[in-house]
Amino acid sequence: MNDDRREGVAETITVRRRLVDELPDALPPAPARFLLTDENVARLLVRGWHDRPGYRWSELPQHVVPAGEASKTWETLGAVLRAMDAAGLDRDGQLVAVGGGVVTDLGGFAASLHRRGVDWVAVPTTLVGQVDAALGGKTAVDLGGGKNTVGTFHHPAAVLVDPTCLATLDRRELAAGMAEVLKTALLDGPDAWDAACALDEEAVRTGSDATVAVIRRCLATKGVLVERDPFDRGERRLLNLGHTFGHALEALALAAAPRAGAAASGLLHGEAVGLGLLCAARLGAGRADGPLEEVLRAQLRTWGLPETRAVEADAVLAEMGRDKKRRAGGHVLVVVAAPGEVGVRRDVPEEEIRAALEAIRPR
Amino acid sequence: MNDDRREGVAETITVRRRLVDELPDALPPAPARFLLTDENVARLLVRGWHDRPGYRWSELPQHVVPAGEASKTWETLGAVLRAMDAAGLDRDGQLVAVGGGVVTDLGGFAASLHRRGVDWVAVPTTLVGQVDAALGGKTAVDLGGGKNTVGTFHHPAAVLVDPTCLATLDRRELAAGMAEVLKTALLDGPDAWDAACALDEEAVRTGSDATVAVIRRCLATKGVLVERDPFDRGERRLLNLGHTFGHALEALALAAAPRAGAAASGLLHGEAVGLGLLCAARLGAGRADGPLEEVLRAQLRTWGLPETRAVEADAVLAEMGRDKKRRAGGHVLVVVAAPGEVGVRRDVPEEEIRAALEAIRPR
Repeated sequence: MNDDRREGVAETITVRRRLVDELPDALPPAPARFLLTDENVARLLVRGWHDRPGYRWSELPQHVVPAGEASKTWETLGAVLRAMDAAGLDRDGQLVAVGGGVVTDLGGFAASLHRRGVDWVAVPTTLVGQVDAALGGKTAVDLGGGKNTVGTFHHPAAVLVDPTCLATLDRRELAAGMAEVLKTALLDGPDAWDAACALDEEAVRTGSDATVAVIRRCLATKGVLVERDPFDRGERRLLNLGHTFGHALEALALAAAPRAGAAASGLLHGEAVGLGLLCAARLGAGRADGPLEEVLRAQLRTWGLPETRAVEADAVLAEMGRDKKRRAGGHVLVVVAAPGEVGVRRDVPEEEIRAALEAIRPR
Repeated sequence: MNDDRREGVAETITVRRRLVDELPDALPPAPARFLLTDENVARLLVRGWHDRPGYRWSELPQHVVPAGEASKTWETLGAVLRAMDAAGLDRDGQLVAVGGGVVTDLGGFAASLHRRGVDWVAVPTTLVGQVDAALGGKTAVDLGGGKNTVGTFHHPAAVLVDPTCLATLDRRELAAGMAEVLKTALLDGPDAWDAACALDEEAVRTGSDATVAVIRRCLATKGVLVERDPFDRGERRLLNLGHTFGHALEALALAAAPRAGAAASGLLHGEAVGLGLLCAARLGAGRADGPLEEVLRAQLRTWGLPETRAVEADAVLAEMGRDKKRRAGGHVLVVVAAPGEVGVRRDVPEEEIRAALEAIRPR
């Protein structure tokens, strides 16, 4: 293994308020840089950087993609790569991706291919990006109808998290990010869970000390799993807690309104994960009134996240079967009995999955 | 480092006559396969496989790209990936790339991205593919006007070489491949050089024992360098012998006839490498009548490869400067004084480069 090639998690993870204002100093040194962002972030955040003394952001070669999942395509990735080539970014250059999960997935992917791999830095600006998407080295775009069907493993040289970026998020996006926070806290244990549950919108939006602590803890929890399983062949699967149910719900929502996209279809990724957590808790408790399910439900309610979803169990099972086809064997699910009490169950019978789906059935 | 990820050279390298006839048995086991090839190879080679007893090639999901460098594009790569997705190839599936350097570059690239990486097998059918392109893990397509501007490192699980495939190559392609054979033999040493010089067209086309031995030796020489420098940061640069001059000559030829492509522009990659070897030998000898240059010139003549090229030294230097911009510092060139006496020279002065170009000046 060549030392120039990082295969662990990011070398530097920094979580600090107003970090974006110090960005030129916080970035790892590089002889040349290229900035990737989306239209929203460019307007709300990056524009304000141009006049900073000491660093001329306006002179940095950059590419701005439209905001939203619709930019996570093969064609957009090609456009990013053409812009990097036109900018003459060398092999020792650095791509800086500032934005949500779409921008960091796209940026990491482009960085892994340009000149067969250049360094990149993730500056996630959404909650889901800050606690989850920017870390782990998985890059991807959607191709052929599926999500994340093509991609690479390419860890960022640094992940720079400024929670004050969250001030500009709309409430629904913020809440969807909280579902990932809750998931990661459940993987971690009772302390992390209590800390996550103690957050409220005001605290998160202002990047309070408590918020900084929760984000750091989420990144540490994910980092340990990624470090143990860099290419997602085993242990990292715990991160799928809530996601197997969640992906099926998302796919069904998208199938119902394919052109509208995830948001308009009525189910953001984080919202689907929240529902998936309820199912995973029901499966973990083995009965309807487990204590975790109740506190989880209360948390989702606090954040305005959905607790129910009208879906046919058969349709969910069909979607889970499609997902499962990518691996051999029966249904593999991550279940949770209590914070920190998480496990992978193999060959889960269909009856149990149907029973778990009762947790999200509309009353 | 996860064991599932290969970072050395290919696990299996097999060179054997009639290997393609035994291909089903020679391929590493896989639950599912996907075949990538080009129109020429499909017509000349793959079509004959369909009726083989014991293996139904015709039932294998496959994608056929047009023959030639024009297929090494971002768009074609996207089409290959869409076909792999449509075929439902799983993460444990295997891509089999049968063809020249374009097909193996494209196939390795697609395999590295599909589901974030599946195994692939290279079955090179051209001489340049068999001795060079299929081994080393470098995958690429052309984007933004440059060659191999985007790509990945993704070693094939196996490289399967059948020299009898060379029977169908046209003479010019065969000769261009011989330039890479000569280059690799110069890196290796006197024995390898003598063995390479002893080959003739009849021997190569029939895949004689001597040809098999030379191909094996070329692959071993490249394999050692790749193994020592998997991500092309140092030692592997020796493989650039003849290529720094060669790339500049190729780029100038393409610039003169951009739409026509490499072949029509009057200079194949291997032909440019042959000319580059003459320059590298002149540079290595430090004088015009070095003994290596003379035997090299005789070899090029034997194979009908060009010994001269009408180019302006200024234009070549400008192209080499553009290439150089990708790294820091002055001109870095690989020079050769005799078979096995090869070295990397840094900050080569322009006067010496001009003097070396005299080696290919038309009389």
